[in-house]
Amino acid sequence: MTQLTRQYFEELDKNDQLASMREEFCLEKGLIYLDGNSLGVLPKATASHMGEVINQQWGEGLIRSWNTHQWMQKPAQLGDKIAQLVGSKEGQMLVCDTTSVNIFKLAAAAVKMRPGRAKLITEIGNFATDLYLLQGLAKLLGDQVQVVALPRDQVLGAIDQDTALVLLTHVHFKTSAMWDMDSVTQITQEKGALMMWDLSHSVGAMPINLDAINVDLAVGCTYKYLNGGPGSPAFLYVAKRHQDLFEQPLTGWLGHAKPFNFEDDYQGAKGIQQAMCGTPAVLANAALEVALNLILGVDMHLVKVKSQLMGNLFIQLIHQRCPEFEVESPQDKKQRGSHVSLTHTQGYAIMQALISRNIIGDFRAPKTLRFGFTPLYLKYVDLWDTVMALEEIMLNKSWDRAEFLHQQAVT
Amino acid sequence: MTQLTRQYFEELDKNDQLASMREEFCLEKGLIYLDGNSLGVLPKATASHMGEVINQQWGEGLIRSWNTHQWMQKPAQLGDKIAQLVGSKEGQMLVCDTTSVNIFKLAAAAVKMRPGRAKLITEIGNFATDLYLLQGLAKLLGDQVQVVALPRDQVLGAIDQDTALVLLTHVHFKTSAMWDMDSVTQITQEKGALMMWDLSHSVGAMPINLDAINVDLAVGCTYKYLNGGPGSPAFLYVAKRHQDLFEQPLTGWLGHAKPFNFEDDYQGAKGIQQAMCGTPAVLANAALEVALNLILGVDMHLVKVKSQLMGNLFIQLIHQRCPEFEVESPQDKKQRGSHVSLTHTQGYAIMQALISRNIIGDFRAPKTLRFGFTPLYLKYVDLWDTVMALEEIMLNKSWDRAEFLHQQAVT
Repeated sequence: MTQLTRQYFEELDKNDQLASMREEFCLEKGLIYLDGNSLGVLPKATASHMGEVINQQWGEGLIRSWNTHQWMQKPAQLGDKIAQLVGSKEGQMLVCDTTSVNIFKLAAAAVKMRPGRAKLITEIGNFATDLYLLQGLAKLLGDQVQVVALPRDQVLGAIDQDTALVLLTHVHFKTSAMWDMDSVTQITQEKGALMMWDLSHSVGAMPINLDAINVDLAVGCTYKYLNGGPGSPAFLYVAKRHQDLFEQPLTGWLGHAKPFNFEDDYQGAKGIQQAMCGTPAVLANAALEVALNLILGVDMHLVKVKSQLMGNLFIQLIHQRCPEFEVESPQDKKQRGSHVSLTHTQGYAIMQALISRNIIGDFRAPKTLRFGFTPLYLKYVDLWDTVMALEEIMLNKSWDRAEFLHQQAVT
Repeated sequence: MTQLTRQYFEELDKNDQLASMREEFCLEKGLIYLDGNSLGVLPKATASHMGEVINQQWGEGLIRSWNTHQWMQKPAQLGDKIAQLVGSKEGQMLVCDTTSVNIFKLAAAAVKMRPGRAKLITEIGNFATDLYLLQGLAKLLGDQVQVVALPRDQVLGAIDQDTALVLLTHVHFKTSAMWDMDSVTQITQEKGALMMWDLSHSVGAMPINLDAINVDLAVGCTYKYLNGGPGSPAFLYVAKRHQDLFEQPLTGWLGHAKPFNFEDDYQGAKGIQQAMCGTPAVLANAALEVALNLILGVDMHLVKVKSQLMGNLFIQLIHQRCPEFEVESPQDKKQRGSHVSLTHTQGYAIMQALISRNIIGDFRAPKTLRFGFTPLYLKYVDLWDTVMALEEIMLNKSWDRAEFLHQQAVT
């Protein structure tokens, strides 16, 4: 194993084909932001576009902007933009609601598309909202379906002829472990079940090919690697071949075939539009559109390669400099998403000490430190500087002080 | 009946205690905006606050702002602000999701709170999404419940011991007819059913007293009289006395008792928080907060009085000057919301002709022209000028020309 040096990381930055993208984002000088897997950074173009949407489109255009600025079409338009990032043809995606609400819509539709099948299979330790929404649906439907949540290594073996739906998160929010979408989708479909992927922790960081691997359903969030802004609207995907049978229960007016006829009886729109429910979040959509336009100009293959190299280098540096940490994430880049998690019993205090040095990662109880690598705006040298800071913190036990300050702050 | 004159309206403006509020809004000179019942006007303070939330809170604060700027607490904080406008004590309202999604949550919870009762009663011609969400829920639940939608005059008589829920819109989106919330709630509850009010077309224009009249459940939208911006988040209300039994099926992570513990099993939070589902729409909430702060400084009694007087004067002027129109809204101000609807077989073309004169109302098929009176930013003289323009359009049949242009545009 090569002994890594700061110069080595500087060289990587010099040769980084994505380096110029960093200029498109607002990043305070001196800040190392390793939490883009939780909340992406503000694109420089967002504020001015929002100003224009607020002042001109809303302020001056008022009600007329629903037509003149296609506010009503944005959910489909933005869905088609995300489609380009995840290998989907047009007309299969919408931007609307939250990931949670969209999971409910698609899971309920899946139950209906697989009548007589009782199991909704997911993973223990999956991002909690995925588990919770399936549980909420199962409870609402009484004995009709049940949620079967299993440890990761037992999930695939449990999929059977009684399985209606398998819901998994492509990249695990905590460990960064990445499912092989292709083979898992195939195994699921061989049993006649439907496959729903939650792409929240991979979209924008990993190439995804929904159409090519024949995925049935997908959801995901846009405020992580897509930089849509805090709480930006989520997306959903329903493969074209399912759209005729697709029926979701949140039958709001904008999923109606003719919403402005205000008919008394619901008649779902054809195609993906039926997955809409209420009025689109126009301002939030505007912020997202800027961010999507930015990432659509980027080669996702370069993004993946940089992400994987960053993860590898970070893990290597941690092994060399901070052996006190256990690496919770897969060492094999092909099984890992775009963040790396370390564990340490003093994880919370250590992360606070890092943050006080202007290096921002995050902490997930009980002992996980997460470091997100966002290829669009992170420098290789940031990794070096992060691990050096971490080494210094561990050597000087600076986290004792941080822990002390934390105790003071919360009491 | 007094013969009305422009001078009379000018006098009313001089003596209008709400007149200064108009300065708080962005209104193009010469524009008469009578569509605040559909999309409220931009408050002047919104753009700069949004700039601060985008640039400082998101751009600089990044992930830290979830705590430092209380992004996570906004749904409850904004709910408590709206509570002040609708006579609700704290801890009974949230700002989240869309009106449509919130109807589903509360209606599903209502079915659970009234087991064995099969009817969900609502009004034919209610705002379509209210009907549709009940239909979606009933379909999902199979034979458990059915939607009973009746003409307005048959609704109250149909409420019986088999009724789980009555869902009505306080002010009708088309006709502006206003239910007597107090007596309807009482009749509903006498039969043991739960009462849900959709306040979308009245909140911010009419005083409402949810607690005082013992309402069970309510929802509403914030982009009309509350001026929260296009597609701004909706609100919901669950009376304190129901919160222990309240269980809604969209069990997202933010309705969990301890969302950041990421437990595998859903355990609903206590109180109104359980009605949350996914991540709050931070940017949209920011725009709404500015608008709510503005209206909270206003005496809602003055708003009601001005709204009612405006409606009365408009109807009187229409009778005097434009007898070709039928007034679709109640003549009695106590039975009417804050907009007045006229009908005419050439309604669409007539509205286009008005809009071409910079007077903006809206049209609802097949023949309704809606004129919204928003006391915060409308002048009395605007009513006069509107009816004079309408009179001129009818005398000269200018709408023929508009119709001609419309035909050209769509073909």
